[in-house]
Amino acid sequence: MDLSSKWIKVSEPFPHILHVELARDPVNAVGFEFWKAYGTTFDSISEKKPHVRAVILSSAFSDIFSAGFDLYNAGQIMKGRTDADPASDAARIAMNFQKQIEQIQEAIMAPERCTFPVIAAVHGTNIGLGVDIIASCDIRYAASNARFTLKQVDIGMAADMGTLAYLPKVMGNMSFVREMAYTADWFSADRAEQMGLVSKVVDGGKEEVVASALELAKRIATKSPIAVTGTKRLLSHGSDHSVAESLQYTTWWNAIMLQTKDFLKRPGSSFLPARPGDFKFGTPKL
Amino acid sequence: MDLSSKWIKVSEPFPHILHVELARDPVNAVGFEFWKAYGTTFDSISEKKPHVRAVILSSAFSDIFSAGFDLYNAGQIMKGRTDADPASDAARIAMNFQKQIEQIQEAIMAPERCTFPVIAAVHGTNIGLGVDIIASCDIRYAASNARFTLKQVDIGMAADMGTLAYLPKVMGNMSFVREMAYTADWFSADRAEQMGLVSKVVDGGKEEVVASALELAKRIATKSPIAVTGTKRLLSHGSDHSVAESLQYTTWWNAIMLQTKDFLKRPGSSFLPARPGDFKFGTPKL
Amino acid sequence: MDLSSKWIKVSEPFPHILHVELARDPVNAVGFEFWKAYGTTFDSISEKKPHVRAVILSSAFSDIFSAGFDLYNAGQIMKGRTDADPASDAARIAMNFQKQIEQIQEAIMAPERCTFPVIAAVHGTNIGLGVDIIASCDIRYAASNARFTLKQVDIGMAADMGTLAYLPKVMGNMSFVREMAYTADWFSADRAEQMGLVSKVVDGGKEEVVASALELAKRIATKSPIAVTGTKRLLSHGSDHSVAESLQYTTWWNAIMLQTKDFLKRPGSSFLPARPGDFKFGTPKL
Amino acid sequence: MDLSSKWIKVSEPFPHILHVELARDPVNAVGFEFWKAYGTTFDSISEKKPHVRAVILSSAFSDIFSAGFDLYNAGQIMKGRTDADPASDAARIAMNFQKQIEQIQEAIMAPERCTFPVIAAVHGTNIGLGVDIIASCDIRYAASNARFTLKQVDIGMAADMGTLAYLPKVMGNMSFVREMAYTADWFSADRAEQMGLVSKVVDGGKEEVVASALELAKRIATKSPIAVTGTKRLLSHGSDHSVAESLQYTTWWNAIMLQTKDFLKRPGSSFLPARPGDFKFGTPKL
Amino acid sequence: MDLSSKWIKVSEPFPHILHVELARDPVNAVGFEFWKAYGTTFDSISEKKPHVRAVILSSAFSDIFSAGFDLYNAGQIMKGRTDADPASDAARIAMNFQKQIEQIQEAIMAPERCTFPVIAAVHGTNIGLGVDIIASCDIRYAASNARFTLKQVDIGMAADMGTLAYLPKVMGNMSFVREMAYTADWFSADRAEQMGLVSKVVDGGKEEVVASALELAKRIATKSPIAVTGTKRLLSHGSDHSVAESLQYTTWWNAIMLQTKDFLKRPGSSFLPARPGDFKFGTPKL
Amino acid sequence: MDLSSKWIKVSEPFPHILHVELARDPVNAVGFEFWKAYGTTFDSISEKKPHVRAVILSSAFSDIFSAGFDLYNAGQIMKGRTDADPASDAARIAMNFQKQIEQIQEAIMAPERCTFPVIAAVHGTNIGLGVDIIASCDIRYAASNARFTLKQVDIGMAADMGTLAYLPKVMGNMSFVREMAYTADWFSADRAEQMGLVSKVVDGGKEEVVASALELAKRIATKSPIAVTGTKRLLSHGSDHSVAESLQYTTWWNAIMLQTKDFLKRPGSSFLPARPGDFKFGTPKL
Repeated sequence: MDLSSKWIKVSEPFPHILHVELARDPVNAVGFEFWKAYGTTFDSISEKKPHVRAVILSSAFSDIFSAGFDLYNAGQIMKGRTDADPASDAARIAMNFQKQIEQIQEAIMAPERCTFPVIAAVHGTNIGLGVDIIASCDIRYAASNARFTLKQVDIGMAADMGTLAYLPKVMGNMSFVREMAYTADWFSADRAEQMGLVSKVVDGGKEEVVASALELAKRIATKSPIAVTGTKRLLSHGSDHSVAESLQYTTWWNAIMLQTKDFLKRPGSSFLPARPGDFKFGTPKL
Repeated sequence: MDLSSKWIKVSEPFPHILHVELARDPVNAVGFEFWKAYGTTFDSISEKKPHVRAVILSSAFSDIFSAGFDLYNAGQIMKGRTDADPASDAARIAMNFQKQIEQIQEAIMAPERCTFPVIAAVHGTNIGLGVDIIASCDIRYAASNARFTLKQVDIGMAADMGTLAYLPKVMGNMSFVREMAYTADWFSADRAEQMGLVSKVVDGGKEEVVASALELAKRIATKSPIAVTGTKRLLSHGSDHSVAESLQYTTWWNAIMLQTKDFLKRPGSSFLPARPGDFKFGTPKL
Repeated sequence: MDLSSKWIKVSEPFPHILHVELARDPVNAVGFEFWKAYGTTFDSISEKKPHVRAVILSSAFSDIFSAGFDLYNAGQIMKGRTDADPASDAARIAMNFQKQIEQIQEAIMAPERCTFPVIAAVHGTNIGLGVDIIASCDIRYAASNARFTLKQVDIGMAADMGTLAYLPKVMGNMSFVREMAYTADWFSADRAEQMGLVSKVVDGGKEEVVASALELAKRIATKSPIAVTGTKRLLSHGSDHSVAESLQYTTWWNAIMLQTKDFLKRPGSSFLPARPGDFKFGTPKL
Repeated sequence: MDLSSKWIKVSEPFPHILHVELARDPVNAVGFEFWKAYGTTFDSISEKKPHVRAVILSSAFSDIFSAGFDLYNAGQIMKGRTDADPASDAARIAMNFQKQIEQIQEAIMAPERCTFPVIAAVHGTNIGLGVDIIASCDIRYAASNARFTLKQVDIGMAADMGTLAYLPKVMGNMSFVREMAYTADWFSADRAEQMGLVSKVVDGGKEEVVASALELAKRIATKSPIAVTGTKRLLSHGSDHSVAESLQYTTWWNAIMLQTKDFLKRPGSSFLPARPGDFKFGTPKL
Repeated sequence: MDLSSKWIKVSEPFPHILHVELARDPVNAVGFEFWKAYGTTFDSISEKKPHVRAVILSSAFSDIFSAGFDLYNAGQIMKGRTDADPASDAARIAMNFQKQIEQIQEAIMAPERCTFPVIAAVHGTNIGLGVDIIASCDIRYAASNARFTLKQVDIGMAADMGTLAYLPKVMGNMSFVREMAYTADWFSADRAEQMGLVSKVVDGGKEEVVASALELAKRIATKSPIAVTGTKRLLSHGSDHSVAESLQYTTWWNAIMLQTKDFLKRPGSSFLPARPGDFKFGTPKL
Repeated sequence: MDLSSKWIKVSEPFPHILHVELARDPVNAVGFEFWKAYGTTFDSISEKKPHVRAVILSSAFSDIFSAGFDLYNAGQIMKGRTDADPASDAARIAMNFQKQIEQIQEAIMAPERCTFPVIAAVHGTNIGLGVDIIASCDIRYAASNARFTLKQVDIGMAADMGTLAYLPKVMGNMSFVREMAYTADWFSADRAEQMGLVSKVVDGGKEEVVASALELAKRIATKSPIAVTGTKRLLSHGSDHSVAESLQYTTWWNAIMLQTKDFLKRPGSSFLPARPGDFKFGTPKL
C-alpha cells in the first residue's frame, strides 16, 4: 500500500523506515490542500503501517525545503471571504478562521502524535510555515546549505501555526529566537545548531543530510519500539510540565512499560549480568 | 514631548526608534526612585508615543551598565524601618516589603508590557539588579567589553527581582545559571553568548553595541507593527505555557490578527504570487 | 559522626564542604539497596550536618561514574514478582511497581531537597540511571574523559527515574536530547557542554574534575548560606513555573529573606557606600 | 439533510434547535460503534448545520437514559485481544488501549467542541458511561424519575472516560462525588440537584424534562449566537484555569467579540439609552 | 481624609470598617469613568487607610445594585472609534480594545488586591457588569429582594470582565452557571444562595443586608489583621492552584506569618493552656 | 499486629475495614508528637495491612473531635526557639519553620496517599487543625451534634496546614468558606452539608455517625480494590488539573487498569450480557 499522494512522496528506503518528501512543485508552498495532505500522511502511517519505527522528512527538491505559506491561496481565501458574506463581521470572521487554524495546527502537529520519531532533514531554503513544520518534529538535522527564516512578520502576519509555541521549548537562547522572529532575518545551518534548533549540521545538501538522517533512523530502528515510543511521550510531557508533574505522570508510564517483554532483552544477546552490581561494557568510541 | 527625566535620557536616533539611556551618576545604582523612573519611562512611551516600533536600552556611561541595587538606599531603608515602628514584627515587615517588591517587579517588567521590542545593548560592567533589568528585555546584545555578575548572594541577599524567574526560560544551560547565581562569579560577553544570555557579541564597547542594536532596531521598524507586537505576545506566552496551552491561545490571536490590513502587504511592493504554490524569492546571503 | 555506608563514602575535604563518592564495586550499579542508601545519604546530611554549605558528588572509581541500573537486581525482581503471586495481574503489578518507582524517584531527587548546592563531578563512563543521578544535581562539571549515554532504550526500557523530566529544562537543544534518548548513542564531555548538560569541561579525569568542583564549592561556601539556599529554591521554582507564577512566589520569599542579618553584610568588611548611588568595585578579571 | 443514524435520532422540534435522541435498543448500551456514531453526530451538526443554536440530548426510551458501557462488546474485545496476538505483552496492550480510549474520549467530549450549548435532559435510569455522557454537556436537567449511578467500580473498572475529570469541576461537594464513585450507589434527581450535578429537576419523566429543556433552548436561541458561543468558550476556560490565566485569555476574546454587529443590538428593538448612565428595565418576575 | 468621589460614597460606620456605596444616579451604570473611580477607591483605601480591616460594598439606592455596563457610553465609544480612524482595521481595533479591557479588569479586581476582606451586600436589581463587581469580592450577602442576571448575551456581548473567570471557582453548580450565562435569565437571592453565589440571604432590602454585613465586618475586625490578610491570600491561591502547588506556597507564608506578635495572643486575654494537650472552650451555640 | 499507639487507637470492626480513633486525652489537641503519630498510623496501614479496603476516622471521645493545634506545645516551641539561638534572625527562623511545616503537611495529607478511601466521621466539636485533618480525607460524614470552626484567625494565625488549599476544591460556596475563615464563626453539621463540606448528616452523635460510616465502608469493601484505588487517584487528579490534563493522565491509567482480572467480574456472579447492547438491571430503590 503506497501512501504517496499528489504533493507528498512516501518511500521505504530501509525496513521499518519511511521517507516522506514534500513534493509540491516548485517550492513546497503550504496551502490548505497541502497541509491537509501533510497531516493525513502522518496519521495514515500511524494507522496503517504499524511496523514503522522512524520517519525521515525532507523536501523532494534539492534547493528548497519549503517556501512556507502559499500566499496565492491565502490571497484568494481572504478575498473570497470578504466577497462572500455581507452579513459577516470581524467576530464572525474570527470564528471561521478559528476552525481553519485549528485544522492547520492539527496537521502540522501530526508528527508529534506519531508513536515513532520523525527526523526532519532540512536542506536549502526554509521559510515561515516551513519552520513550523520542522519545529514539531522530534529531531532536526540540517545540511550545511540550509537557510532559515521566520518570515511571518515580513508579510504582516502576527500569526503562527506552532513556531512561537515550540521554539521557546526547543532552543536555548530566547534572545536569538526573538531576534529572528521580529526581523525575519535569514540564519544559517551553523547558527541553527549553535542556538539549539538543530542537533547536527551535515556538510553538503539534500543527499548528504538525508543519508545522515537515514543512519540515525537505522540506529533508532534497532531499539525496542515500545521503549522509543515511551521515551518520546515522556520527553514531550517533560518539556511541557514541571518536574513534579512529570514525575507523577512518569510513575504510571513506568509501571506499565516495565511490563513489556522487551525489558532486559536485546536482539541477539542476553546481557543480564552474572553477579549483582556487575555489568560488562566496551569502551565507548566518540 | 521629551520623556527624559533626572536619571534617564530618552532620544530618538532614528524615526520610530527610541534610545533609553540609564544615566544615574556615577554607576547607575538602582534605588527606589530610580526604578520608579525606569518603569515610568517605558509605560510613558507605550502610552504617549504610539509611533514607536523599537527601543534600545543602554547605559549613558561607557564603563558601566549598572552597579545594581543601590546599597546606600537599601541600608537607609533597612535602618529606617527598624527605627520607625516599635510595634512591628517580622510578619508585618514582610507585609510591607511585599508591596515594595511588587512595585519594583512592576517597574523592571515594564519592557515586557510594551507592544514594541526592547533591545538591551550591554557594555562594561553589569551587576545584580542590572542583570534583572536586561533579563526582561526582548533581545540582548553585548559589547565584547561587557562583564556580568549575579551579585545577590555576595551581599547576603536571597532575593531577586526577576533574574531567577527569567533566566531558566531565557538560557539553555541551567548548570551554568546555577553556578553563576551561587558564586556571584563574573562572566564575559563571549560566555554570555555561549550560554544563551545574549544573541550577539559586538566587538568594542558602548558605541559599537549601540550601533549594532540600532541596525537591528531599524530592521524591526520596517515590519508591520501589528505583526511584531503579536509575535512578541505569542513568544512570551509560548515561553511560559505548554505547547497545548499556547496553541489554544494562539488560535484566537491568529483569528484576530489575520484581519489586519498589513496581512499580505509589504511597503512598496505586492508579492502575491501569480499562480498557486508559486513564490519568488532571492537567494539569501549570510 | 561519619555518614559513610557500605557503598557510599562521605568525607569533608574542606570545612563546610562534603565529598560524596559512589563506591559500589565494580561499576556503581544502581539497584534498590544502592539508591536507598544514596537518598538516605543526602537526607542525613541535611538533617545532621547543618554546617554543610556545598556537596561534591563523584564516583570513587576513576574509570566509571556509574553503569546505571543494576540489571542483575532488576532481573531478579522481575523474575521474583512473576513467580510469587499467581493471583496477580498487569494492573496489580503496576500498582506495586508504582510504589517502588516513587521510592526511587524520592531517592534520586534527594539533592534537590537539600538546602545546599550539590555539584556533580562526572568522570569516566556514565550510563542510564547515572545520568538521572546528575540531572537532579545543581551543577554539573565533566572531566574531559567523561562519556555519557541515555541507555534506557537499549535494554527495552521506556521508563526513567527523572532524566526525561529534567533534561528538557536543563539543556537548550531538544533535538539533541531526543536524539540521544532514542539512540542510546554515546556523547562526549565537550558535546555535553555544547548542548547544555554541563557547565565546565575539566581537562583530565577524576582527580582534575573533583579538584575543580572543590574550588567551586569553596567559592560557594564563602557566601551567606541563607542567600544560597534562597537562590536555589527560587531557581528551581523559576525553572518549573511561568514568570508570573514565579514572581508571585518570589515576592514572599523576598519579604522573608530580606530580614536576614546577612543582608548587606560580608565577612570582614562593610561595603555600604558612603553616598547614595555610589558603589566601589574593582575591575573584574576574566 | 437528516443526520439520524442507526442508533441516534436527530430531529428539529423548533427552528435552530435540534433534538438528539439515543436510540439503541433496548438500553442505549455504549459500545465502540455507538460512541463513534455519538461523536460523529455532534461533529456533523457543527459542520453541516451552522444555523443550530442549541441541542437537546435525551434518550429515545422513556425508562432508561443509558445503561452505560456495552459489556457484551467489551467482553468480546477483551477476549479477542487476548486470543489474537501471542507476541503481545501488558505494555503493548496498554499502547493499543490508549488509542481506543482517546477515540472514546474524543467522542464523549464532542458536545464541548460544539459552538452551541448542549442540554442533557436526563430521565429514567442512567448508569456509568451514561454519566460521562452528560458530564461534558453544558447544562443538565433531570426528570424526577431520573436515577444515577457511577457504576465503574461495580464491574472492576478503575477506568473512566471523563466523569472523574469533569465532576470535580461541575459539582460543589467532593465528599459526595467520592462517595458515589467508590460505592456505585444510586442517587436521585433531587440529590443530583442538591449536590450540583443538575440545575433543575422537572416533575415527571422523559416528556416533561424534554419539554422543559426545549423551553430553555428556545430562550437561548433568541440570543446572539456569537455571544452564546463566546460565553461557552470562556466558561470552559474559566473552569480549567486560574483567574489570572482566564483574564489574560478573556482579554483577547473580548477584543474580537466586541467587534460583532450583534453588540448593542437586539432583534426588534433598540435599547441604547438616551442619556449617559440611564437604562430602562422592567421589574423581574421570579 | 474623605475618599468619596462624584459617584462613589465612602463612610466609616464603625471603627476600622468602611462602607463603599455605588451612587451613580439613577442606576449605577458602569461606564469608563465610573469603573476607573471604582478601582481607584479601593486602591486608595489600601494605600491611605492602613487601619481598615473590612469594607462593605453596596449600592446607594434601595431598588438597584447596578444596571451593569453603561450602554450609552459604550454606544458612543463604538461609534467614536469607527469614525475616528479610517486607517484602522479589525486587528488594530482589537489592540486598542485590549488596553481598555485590561484597565477595566484591573478596576473590577481591585477588591481582590486589598489586604482586608470586601463584603458585597447586594440588594435590589443587579445586572451584568454588576455581577462581575460582586464576583471578585470576598463574601457576598444578598437581601431577599435581590435579583440577578448575567445580562451579557442579551446585548450581543460575548465579552465579560471577570464573571466567567470567577463564577466557576466561586459556585458549586456549573450547569446553573451556564444556564444563567446563556439565557440572561433572572434569578433570586434564594436561588443564588442555593447555587453557591451568596452565603447568606437577609430578609428585607438594602437596610437589612447592610446591617447584617456590618455585623459580619465587626466580627472580622476583632481578629488579627495579619491573620485575616494571610487567610485571604491563601484562599485566593488555593482557589486557583492544585493542592500540591498551594501547599508549597503555603509553607513559606506560614514560615513568615508564625513570626507575628499576634500569634497566640488575643485582645484582653491569654489563652495558653496550663497543660499540654489541654484547651478550654465554651459550648458553641448555633 | 496492632497499629495502635499512645494517642491513636486502631481496631478492625469488620474484615478489610479499620477504625482509627484519635484518643489524646482530653481534647485531641494536635501537637508535634501527635501529628507525627497520626501520619505514621496511615502510612503504616498502607505498608503493613495490604488487605485494608477502607478506613474510618473518628475521635475516641464523644463530645469532641479535635480542639486543633496544641497551643501549649506551640507556646513552648515559640518560647524555646527565641531563647535558644541568639544568632538567629527572621529568615533563619523561617527556614526552620519551613521544615516543620512540611512535616506537618506530610502527616495531615497521609490519608490522601493511601490506596483505600478514608471516611471522616465527625462528631462533637471540631476546631482549626481538626478541620485540616478532615479536609484531606476522601469522604466526610457528620453527626448532627457536630460543630465546626476554622479557628486560625482567632489566635492570630495566618497559617494553615491544608484547609485553605483543600476547601476551595472540596466545597461549592467560596463566599461561605471565606466568611468562616475570616470570622472563626461556628457552623453546624447541617450548614456543613448545605455548603458542601460533608455529604451526609447522621442524626445523633459519635455512635450513630460511626455506624453510618461503617455501613458505607462495607459497601466500598465489596468493590474491586484496584477499581477503588484507581478511582481515588483519578478524582484527586481531576480535582487539581484541567479537564484536558486529566484526560491525558486518565488515558494511561485506563490502559493499565483495564488489564486487571477484576474487570468484568463481580464476586458470585457473571453479568456479561448474552447479546450486544443488552444489560439486565433491577429498578433502583432510593
